[in-house]
Amino acid sequence: MAVGRLPDLADIEAARERIKPYAVVTPLIEHPALNAVTGGRVLLKAETLQRVGAFKFRGAFNAVSQIDRARYPGGVVACSSGNHAQGVAHSATLCGMASVIVMPSDAPKLKISRTRAFGAEVVLYNRATEDRDAIARKICDERKAAFVHPFDDPHVIAGQGTAGLELMAQAKAMGAMPDAVLACCSGGGLTTGVAIAVKAANAKTEVFTVEPAGFDEFQRSLVSGKRERNPTASGSICDALLSPMPGEITFALAQKFVTGGLVVTDEEARAAMRFAFLELKLVVEPGGAVALAAVLAGKLPTKGRTIVALLSGGNVDPADYAQIITG
Amino acid sequence: MAVGRLPDLADIEAARERIKPYAVVTPLIEHPALNAVTGGRVLLKAETLQRVGAFKFRGAFNAVSQIDRARYPGGVVACSSGNHAQGVAHSATLCGMASVIVMPSDAPKLKISRTRAFGAEVVLYNRATEDRDAIARKICDERKAAFVHPFDDPHVIAGQGTAGLELMAQAKAMGAMPDAVLACCSGGGLTTGVAIAVKAANAKTEVFTVEPAGFDEFQRSLVSGKRERNPTASGSICDALLSPMPGEITFALAQKFVTGGLVVTDEEARAAMRFAFLELKLVVEPGGAVALAAVLAGKLPTKGRTIVALLSGGNVDPADYAQIITG
Repeated sequence: MAVGRLPDLADIEAARERIKPYAVVTPLIEHPALNAVTGGRVLLKAETLQRVGAFKFRGAFNAVSQIDRARYPGGVVACSSGNHAQGVAHSATLCGMASVIVMPSDAPKLKISRTRAFGAEVVLYNRATEDRDAIARKICDERKAAFVHPFDDPHVIAGQGTAGLELMAQAKAMGAMPDAVLACCSGGGLTTGVAIAVKAANAKTEVFTVEPAGFDEFQRSLVSGKRERNPTASGSICDALLSPMPGEITFALAQKFVTGGLVVTDEEARAAMRFAFLELKLVVEPGGAVALAAVLAGKLPTKGRTIVALLSGGNVDPADYAQIITG
Repeated sequence: MAVGRLPDLADIEAARERIKPYAVVTPLIEHPALNAVTGGRVLLKAETLQRVGAFKFRGAFNAVSQIDRARYPGGVVACSSGNHAQGVAHSATLCGMASVIVMPSDAPKLKISRTRAFGAEVVLYNRATEDRDAIARKICDERKAAFVHPFDDPHVIAGQGTAGLELMAQAKAMGAMPDAVLACCSGGGLTTGVAIAVKAANAKTEVFTVEPAGFDEFQRSLVSGKRERNPTASGSICDALLSPMPGEITFALAQKFVTGGLVVTDEEARAAMRFAFLELKLVVEPGGAVALAAVLAGKLPTKGRTIVALLSGGNVDPADYAQIITG
């Protein structure tokens, strides 16, 4: 497997400068209620407060802003269930480029409407019967547009890694050195970008993927040493975390920098969303809550330790959210 | 009207040291979506992330921690519809003291259950037929307990003012000088405490109360020059902002430091809660959303200006919240 040069710390530092005028330096939040239930010091990197409501803006803007417009006059094309969609759409608009996003027809309505509101043309496809990559390739060819992969792209990974740079600096400013950093994981762009930055700041800090049960391709791949595929394509409430298998680049990085994988159930994700509503007053979507869920459900030791959990996104349909917080 | 020595900047600085080991230095959040709709720079002081989910912990802890235990062996008593209740209950528990909170029977269930969870004995009363002050006085006498007023107490005002110290320092660190600071206002403890700190940092920054329509006692009192009473005791969804009239101390401070009052409707408060859910991913209760509502509803000019709005609390019943975000 030849994946070319892997992104590194210098790429992430360059990405930080590129996204600086637009991205939010999201707060690293410490809440006494969370420390009390875990017996540790738990810091939350609130990417829910990022532009577009998810970390995806970081990688999308880093990639989109580097597209050669002469070569790609038709702008940018992406496939996404919703957060990368918004990140690419908004980045393209900020850069004065057109965007087409190929989204599954069963994506949350809020994500589809927000992607349109950020300026994209949305093309819906049937997740069960159509090939999204083929649809995207065809649009790229027809329009002379560039494709931005949701995770297996060095620029995207470097962009997501800026969250790792920030959280390590913020933790240091708070007098905290993380024993572990937990990232909500689908294709692995966030986890591996963050892992590069975290390991560069402190080699002893462990980095874990957190995935929903049934979509634990990273956990299994890290154990087996080869890229494993999930048995099904849908069936978790964590709509943002349904990638079929690790990327080539992200898996190569994960083997180098990621300690292991944690897995939570949908019910544990829901419980974390309710905790975030009741105690932290933060809106978190199901896929964005799995790292917090791993902490709350005791998937790793927390007592006396310092743990950073990323809250990766907050784009949840009001009706779904209403059901979860009242359920 | 003799109200004694008014609290000042030194009192707030002393309060800051007193609450430091327990209170959260809440983030001052800037979000591109909010800047975009207002055409200005709007910074949100997220007291929703404070211990107990509201700014009230600041003033409560500053007051409770100074109670003479030899004189008041029975601990502390307070009257509150819910956020001061939680602040006093939690502060008393942290200080190893007993607490009794007199709460209206129509207070949000979440606030009653959380007040109990923070360690208080809750005594419910009927807002229409019973005198809460008489009930509280009787308990104080019987138990040799100290009474902590929700707003008209120099220690409480000084504690709330620590939010003002923080937000001015945080704005400065972000390269921003606020043209105006907007505080959700009921009895005036938050507004006036914050106003002392804001004016000390920059005399030109204007401070406004924001109140729900029908409960705009500060707005009217500032205009008339004397303490005005609200016509009714209930009838707004802003359950935290139903004080009948300004306090003596808070009104004296408001006359000195507060520019004027803004008023929003319940529907504007609901719209702000929905905006906070959809765009900011922050849970805000009705009374905690009125300052943001004033910004969003154009109650003051925002274009090209820097405005700080306090999000004063996030303790809202899940069922009520579900209805508002889906409504």
